[in-house]
Amino acid sequence: MGENEQMKESRPLIAITMGDPAGIGPEISVKALADPNLYERCRPLLIGDACMLERAKHITGKAAVDLNCVASAAEGLYKHGTIDVLDMGLIDIDRLAVGKVSAMAGEAAFQYVVKAIELAMAKEVDGTVTNALNKEAINLAGHHYSGHTEIFAEYTNTRNYTMMLAHNNLRVVHVSTHVSLKEACDSVKKDRITEVIRIAGQACIGLGIPNPKIGVAGLNPHCGEGGLFGREEIEEITPAVKAAQMEGIRAEGPVPADTIFSKAMGGWYDIVVAMYHDQGHIPLKTVGFVYSREQGKWESVEGVNITLGLPIIRTSVDHGTAFDQAGKGTADEKSLVNAIDYSILLALNNN
Amino acid sequence: MGENEQMKESRPLIAITMGDPAGIGPEISVKALADPNLYERCRPLLIGDACMLERAKHITGKAAVDLNCVASAAEGLYKHGTIDVLDMGLIDIDRLAVGKVSAMAGEAAFQYVVKAIELAMAKEVDGTVTNALNKEAINLAGHHYSGHTEIFAEYTNTRNYTMMLAHNNLRVVHVSTHVSLKEACDSVKKDRITEVIRIAGQACIGLGIPNPKIGVAGLNPHCGEGGLFGREEIEEITPAVKAAQMEGIRAEGPVPADTIFSKAMGGWYDIVVAMYHDQGHIPLKTVGFVYSREQGKWESVEGVNITLGLPIIRTSVDHGTAFDQAGKGTADEKSLVNAIDYSILLALNNN
Repeated sequence: MGENEQMKESRPLIAITMGDPAGIGPEISVKALADPNLYERCRPLLIGDACMLERAKHITGKAAVDLNCVASAAEGLYKHGTIDVLDMGLIDIDRLAVGKVSAMAGEAAFQYVVKAIELAMAKEVDGTVTNALNKEAINLAGHHYSGHTEIFAEYTNTRNYTMMLAHNNLRVVHVSTHVSLKEACDSVKKDRITEVIRIAGQACIGLGIPNPKIGVAGLNPHCGEGGLFGREEIEEITPAVKAAQMEGIRAEGPVPADTIFSKAMGGWYDIVVAMYHDQGHIPLKTVGFVYSREQGKWESVEGVNITLGLPIIRTSVDHGTAFDQAGKGTADEKSLVNAIDYSILLALNNN
Repeated sequence: MGENEQMKESRPLIAITMGDPAGIGPEISVKALADPNLYERCRPLLIGDACMLERAKHITGKAAVDLNCVASAAEGLYKHGTIDVLDMGLIDIDRLAVGKVSAMAGEAAFQYVVKAIELAMAKEVDGTVTNALNKEAINLAGHHYSGHTEIFAEYTNTRNYTMMLAHNNLRVVHVSTHVSLKEACDSVKKDRITEVIRIAGQACIGLGIPNPKIGVAGLNPHCGEGGLFGREEIEEITPAVKAAQMEGIRAEGPVPADTIFSKAMGGWYDIVVAMYHDQGHIPLKTVGFVYSREQGKWESVEGVNITLGLPIIRTSVDHGTAFDQAGKGTADEKSLVNAIDYSILLALNNN
């Protein structure tokens, strides 16, 4: 490709990690990257192990797709019928136990993430998307992180970051995430809330939503009912909302947590600031995840996890490694496709 | 009607309070009781003020329906085209400010509830359904309760009761309700959880579900990730689930709060034990309440609130007085109809 043709390329280049090789990551990656429509929207580059993807092709009935192993992003073909893979060669397939925690799989999953971050920091790719890893497996491999987000933070030297979840027009950012609920209550402080309101506004602008309207949830039931049960609304949340409004941000709240999400889904808010992990995760997954008792599995898993505040773009699937479903070819790739689409959207709005 | 004919009456007699007269209660009551199908399922008796209902008939376009004011449940006609009203005569309509908190409206709303409880305790009705009251209004009238549930508890001399919420096949009971989130964390104790698991099981049986499967939610994100962030799952919830299992109850958990509700909606659990108010209210209202930005109002409000543990049947709408919508005739009666249907179901299964 000549330089002029390269200049014309408008499809963002998205690095996608394969996730824990023993989970559903290889299968849902092949499913997502076998879809011709994806290549109209982006140039997807899978970072993983070719041996696992070769097997996943057969498990998922996508044997006709070719794997194109590349050494750099520039070598990718990025056209339907081919899956471009940066093959890290970390898995001995004969030793890999599908659906099981292992140090080998944890090491591989970790290295895929590090590679994706490197490519994004070097601007060789426009955005990153992660499949699920297993915390126990990466720890077994000697990498002591509680999750992807902490790896991204360290390798990009970022201190202030926030988790955002999205499903269709429902978007949520969190004041705190992986702490106990008691500690989460203690984290509901004016300055942190104001900071997250700012981040929420910036995130919407980054998604192409000008002048976003931000709903801020309460912490206590009924927002504490005027101080009757809980005073955080009066002492921390209301002052934080007022401070954000003084900065010209269209923030509103505190709004009772049991109605704010319906209002957001109805279009009243562009994004919601949740006070703790489950406050945001419960509504997102309740609407995005569909479980079938007959099939004993998740029929549909939708939703995207986005890390805000990083110098690079990072979105992720909103589910785990699903070891119990690995190797069956039945896992649903919707969340991965959602995550790729959000990465594309962010890349297009941040260039 | 002769004694033999009375014996044959299989439709439960349901007392429905009109709620705060200044709210949407009168309007949604008229809408619900103007529906011919309702009379195939039950004998509805409205407890309220006839003057407000007469006005509500016109506001809602149901002027053709007749009000039949009765002095006792036995005088009701219980047929389509007539709304049977136990007229308490507590409202001076010229003084009533629609959409405003007042002691007069609070006093009336309170007395409707007391009357409904009396009728149910005397077995003159088979179940009760409450429309919303305004806490400030009843307090202005000198009745110091934080809500319906506390009134029912006191007037039926009940100490152990629990709130259940229901929307279609999603049912939730709560370990705690109207306390601050910090206090709710402290209420997550083995004995209380085991008690609520038992109540949840009994509630399902009362709804005609034999041998119910009960999902018990965790308190902390990811159920505390094995004690990493929060130990209530290890120290309180797991022992409570085991204790319930020892009693032969099909309890399962702790299950992460962000997926348990999708599983319940998919049929995996008949009921969910939530650890705090919003944990149960967020998913219920996120799926049951539909908000329209264009119309600036709730398009649809579904869900039922049921008080378990009382000697009488009590269900309630799952929303407030909606003062901002009162007098317009546009408020949605679905939650009230849901509540009446649950009261009927409970009455049929508890005779």
